[in-house]
Amino acid sequence: MTDPEFGYVTRENLSLFTDFYELTMLQGYHESGHNPDAVFDLFFRRLPPDRGYMITAGLEQAVYYIENLEFSDRALEYLKEKGFRDSFLDYLQDFEFTGDVRAVPEGTPVFPDEPLMEVEAPIMQAQLFETLLINQVAFQSLVATKAARMKEGVERYGDGQSLVDFGSRRSHGTDAGMKAARAAYIGGFSGTSNVAAGESFGLPVYGTMAHSWVESFDTEEEAFEAYIDEYGEDSILLIDTYDTVGGAETASEVAEERGVNIRGVRIDSGDLAGLSQKVKDVVDTGVFVSSGVDEFKIREFFESGGVASGFGVGTKLVTSRDAPALEGVYKLVASRSRGEMEPRMKLSERKVTWPGRKSVERIERDGTYEKDVLRMGGEIGERDLLVQVFKDGERVYELPDLEEIKVRAQEERRKLPERVRSIEKPVEYPVEIGEGLERAAERLQDELSKL
Amino acid sequence: MTDPEFGYVTRENLSLFTDFYELTMLQGYHESGHNPDAVFDLFFRRLPPDRGYMITAGLEQAVYYIENLEFSDRALEYLKEKGFRDSFLDYLQDFEFTGDVRAVPEGTPVFPDEPLMEVEAPIMQAQLFETLLINQVAFQSLVATKAARMKEGVERYGDGQSLVDFGSRRSHGTDAGMKAARAAYIGGFSGTSNVAAGESFGLPVYGTMAHSWVESFDTEEEAFEAYIDEYGEDSILLIDTYDTVGGAETASEVAEERGVNIRGVRIDSGDLAGLSQKVKDVVDTGVFVSSGVDEFKIREFFESGGVASGFGVGTKLVTSRDAPALEGVYKLVASRSRGEMEPRMKLSERKVTWPGRKSVERIERDGTYEKDVLRMGGEIGERDLLVQVFKDGERVYELPDLEEIKVRAQEERRKLPERVRSIEKPVEYPVEIGEGLERAAERLQDELSKL
Repeated sequence: MTDPEFGYVTRENLSLFTDFYELTMLQGYHESGHNPDAVFDLFFRRLPPDRGYMITAGLEQAVYYIENLEFSDRALEYLKEKGFRDSFLDYLQDFEFTGDVRAVPEGTPVFPDEPLMEVEAPIMQAQLFETLLINQVAFQSLVATKAARMKEGVERYGDGQSLVDFGSRRSHGTDAGMKAARAAYIGGFSGTSNVAAGESFGLPVYGTMAHSWVESFDTEEEAFEAYIDEYGEDSILLIDTYDTVGGAETASEVAEERGVNIRGVRIDSGDLAGLSQKVKDVVDTGVFVSSGVDEFKIREFFESGGVASGFGVGTKLVTSRDAPALEGVYKLVASRSRGEMEPRMKLSERKVTWPGRKSVERIERDGTYEKDVLRMGGEIGERDLLVQVFKDGERVYELPDLEEIKVRAQEERRKLPERVRSIEKPVEYPVEIGEGLERAAERLQDELSKL
Repeated sequence: MTDPEFGYVTRENLSLFTDFYELTMLQGYHESGHNPDAVFDLFFRRLPPDRGYMITAGLEQAVYYIENLEFSDRALEYLKEKGFRDSFLDYLQDFEFTGDVRAVPEGTPVFPDEPLMEVEAPIMQAQLFETLLINQVAFQSLVATKAARMKEGVERYGDGQSLVDFGSRRSHGTDAGMKAARAAYIGGFSGTSNVAAGESFGLPVYGTMAHSWVESFDTEEEAFEAYIDEYGEDSILLIDTYDTVGGAETASEVAEERGVNIRGVRIDSGDLAGLSQKVKDVVDTGVFVSSGVDEFKIREFFESGGVASGFGVGTKLVTSRDAPALEGVYKLVASRSRGEMEPRMKLSERKVTWPGRKSVERIERDGTYEKDVLRMGGEIGERDLLVQVFKDGERVYELPDLEEIKVRAQEERRKLPERVRSIEKPVEYPVEIGEGLERAAERLQDELSKL
């Protein structure tokens, strides 16, 4: 047992949630007196399979990190043990962000190569953020996108049925459970079963009973009676412990006997579409469906004639199971040399990193987005998708509340061309490279290859 | 901004990291005076693709949770807002675990249907643990297993090269980054780049420089000089920013000019096997390789003649990318009725849950494990794979340190039949059902189907 929080990240060790090389580099910059202003872009190079877009999320946590980052005594003591120099630790003790950040607001559809965040600061500050910013933004974006795809699924194939996150047990650790609940809400979910996420983020929380409730009583009937006696009309009875249709009949009888209009019944196994029809013939309540749900299952469910008021969604949402990683990167795109801010790029991997500060212009026609143009920074002023978040170390952006982000995510998603939003084999959304940027990249590539 | 820790799980809200239905059930049990002793098993039903075994991990965190669980004022206030009754909140305020836990020690290979943990307590206690126990144990087991497979890879196809976790930026949130580092160490990794995980768990931490270090200087040569001047023999220089073989030459020249035997160079892109050979011809140091590494890449790397001293492993480790979820479940297997502890099982889903308390016997022949037998609890005494962890609410198991767990994981893995350990299409390890258990299950199934 090594620490009181036992391996959770808190304020005390948040500054250490970084790769060791960030700190060795920082000490190197510090000791060699090389601390040029630098610009880093957080972006991704490719869309995951079947994704026509990503919904960006996690900026709020990134902002929190930048605003609250400090090296606690515990952190500094550990770094001293690891051999870092006192002069450098003194620097860390007074660490404070003094730079600028621009970012795409949460809930916005984004595409490959577009900066989701742009950090401009002395490299000893900007470098440090890499690990945590990618960690929070990439994961939440994955889940917000997966959720948006399921929302698309219930809108296209059903009647916009409600979706609730049930995934905390299958999420990768506790933070993922928390942030998946948040990101799912942004993507269009109605709430979560995770009580801690409900408390932290003000999300609606849902849930009624597990199979163990039913099994702990001698009969299903007793189990349903005890639940209705406590929760009345709020009851959603789980009916598939022994026999689903039989369970639906028992639920109906018990509700009638108690004189209560229960909210619904839930089916969690078997042929969900077929059972849901049979159950709907028996009960006069909502029918909720869980077990292996994702956007593809939702389509199949409705195409097979399934009937549901809502879905509980677990593993496939919180792990973004078919695409569990977005290869988010945080790349140096410019740094100051002899007084001038110069664009930078890496050459050898044959992956282009567009150099310099950038802007994204999104072009709309008749209420639908037509294409994006990736331009050199500052070219397009207020039409830029990126907004100013920090200026000279001060936050100048008021964080929108979650409802506002959720509304944006729905509205913006619906403005994408329909075929870009397909849950399978989407059409590629065009992202053009502006002329100025294209020329700047060519110039830089020439210079570098002459080195 | 909703709370000071901004959505991280700490002691203050750990009790709320649970599904809402656990709490509605608990209140239902409480208010109806139905609080029978119950036994829950944590297990998984199927091995993920290409896995011949799982390495269990996460018990330490599960124990921490059970030992430290309490409902803070903040938690109770939130639950009151959500409409829970005062009488029930009073119960939660005094919540204390009074039951028994048996578990398979961390680092042990485990198979489908075998209980990794067995919790026996009044149902109002045991029920509550479901979400967090699965969350911690399933995820850490996924990563420990993925790590063990890579360790198997370097042992089979290489010379047991060192493996280091570089994955924190791609992990699902901060807790996953922490726990992945821990689990990877158990599976056989040498350490992590995650400084916070190093601090929390006492893991060795590694890392030197990113491409941004190189790019922030006017030339690669200057970048290498500055690094060696600070870190001397500890330097591992990243050589693929502009041209990998050219970078190797520059690294060699700078090291020679400075009169330093650097530890190595790192390649992070391109044809890793081919480049590693060319680089090895140029440098007289370690060659470290990263970028897309997993057990399959390791095999391919060595089969293509690659040369490496060690690997940095990221995304595919921490997300267990080819199998990002282990469908861990926590099922009621017995509960007391009219004074008798009776086995329980769910019928309708056609998935068998073996009822009652169970034991696992692992049968060894000539130093190799031959098969497991899943038996009724208590049948086999000390040969049981499960050890007593809590007795009447008191912890009776001394948590082994991480080194011990890691050693166990390596030794136990190597005692599995070689073909069970194959990284692709492994042979199935036999898990037999003991006669007593088989008969008990049949009896119960008959009874239930007559209901």
